[in-house]
Amino acid sequence: MSLRVILVEPMYEGNVGSVARVMKNFGFHDLVLVNPCKIEDFGLAMASHARDILQMSRSFSTLHEALEGVSLVVGTTGKRLENEQHHLRLHLRVPCLTPAQLAKKLNGKEGKVALLLGREDCGLCSEELAICDLIVSIPTAREYPIMNLSHAAAVLFYELSRVENGNVDLAKRETLLLLLERSRKLLQEISYPEHKLEFTVLMLRRIFGRAELTEREARTLLGVIKNLRWKASVPEENSLESSPK
Amino acid sequence: MSLRVILVEPMYEGNVGSVARVMKNFGFHDLVLVNPCKIEDFGLAMASHARDILQMSRSFSTLHEALEGVSLVVGTTGKRLENEQHHLRLHLRVPCLTPAQLAKKLNGKEGKVALLLGREDCGLCSEELAICDLIVSIPTAREYPIMNLSHAAAVLFYELSRVENGNVDLAKRETLLLLLERSRKLLQEISYPEHKLEFTVLMLRRIFGRAELTEREARTLLGVIKNLRWKASVPEENSLESSPK
Repeated sequence: MSLRVILVEPMYEGNVGSVARVMKNFGFHDLVLVNPCKIEDFGLAMASHARDILQMSRSFSTLHEALEGVSLVVGTTGKRLENEQHHLRLHLRVPCLTPAQLAKKLNGKEGKVALLLGREDCGLCSEELAICDLIVSIPTAREYPIMNLSHAAAVLFYELSRVENGNVDLAKRETLLLLLERSRKLLQEISYPEHKLEFTVLMLRRIFGRAELTEREARTLLGVIKNLRWKASVPEENSLESSPK
Repeated sequence: MSLRVILVEPMYEGNVGSVARVMKNFGFHDLVLVNPCKIEDFGLAMASHARDILQMSRSFSTLHEALEGVSLVVGTTGKRLENEQHHLRLHLRVPCLTPAQLAKKLNGKEGKVALLLGREDCGLCSEELAICDLIVSIPTAREYPIMNLSHAAAVLFYELSRVENGNVDLAKRETLLLLLERSRKLLQEISYPEHKLEFTVLMLRRIFGRAELTEREARTLLGVIKNLRWKASVPEENSLESSPK
């Protein structure tokens, strides 16, 4: 497993520098920023001996671009787990994990995992959480649950640094998105009720996410859908899934 | 178990404030400072909603005063575990633990545990480490092992917040120190070789530390020593251990 740390619209350069430092403390190097604040002298000072992480970081204007090449998207939330779990489970059925549970889940997996850390004041918005495959939340005290961004990062990196690499090759995000797009097309072609379509596609997304599909499984499913659509005499537009086994 | 966080000669008020914040995030409230830097507006700002922790903190000029009432002293070191372990084991035989091992060791114990965090530039000095019963070190990356003070604190508090209370009532530090003093006197009275005395007392200290003596066990040992000294016809000076069972 390799980790990409994505800071979504960080507001304070000191925090960005601190996150870079604690990344290097735990052996992580891939930092991506989405619409960040300006990073100047104070940010570099807080990065200390990890200013190379900051200098090698990439910035994008959309989260979509930041996620390129990623297999699994993990969102973070500072809201207390039980509330969040209730909310997210009801509406999105995204599994909510503690950092230790996340580390355990990633153990033995292979692929690029994106860890999304949100804005200092309001975290990740619900649209951003909706595209996550997993949500992680640090169990904190009820009287003051909201951690500083870089402290939360420290705890998460500490747990994730203990994850051991494996050979379960997780499906690439691009393959999963193609699988969902083809699933949607198939449903439309078989005249699946329009008002149920979006819900069903979201449900499929959650099922694929929780199942931790490998690249091979995702491609096999693309092949199944190709066969189903061919039976319904729909010509293929794209050749990515042309030779499933 | 209740935790006392002791910052030994912290140099930057921002770090002190950040430690206060992350203490409150994980439900800890007892902060003690030894010869701290001045804490003004920036420190309070970094504490955010934990400025009460900062305001209720106590400052002392010596570590000795800061440790009053404590049962177990845990030191922290940013030096890599394998080196430190080698050094400390050879000279002091203090057990070196990871944060997870420390949490496991404290599980089910009752008593006040002091967690010592050292200076930002050089940590705890060897005299300070020598009075610790346990040493904890966070496993970090070889290329940049030195964490920011408050990030290290965040990881340690995260692990320690999972410790469950129990009823193994650890001996108070005062009782342990008395036990060592009486052991030393006993050795002197039986004409134990002078050149071996200090080493043997330090060895006893480590043995008692690793054994995690309860208050009752420590008082029983004081009774044993009282009887031994009485056999050698030495009158008692103090009545703390006067009625062992």
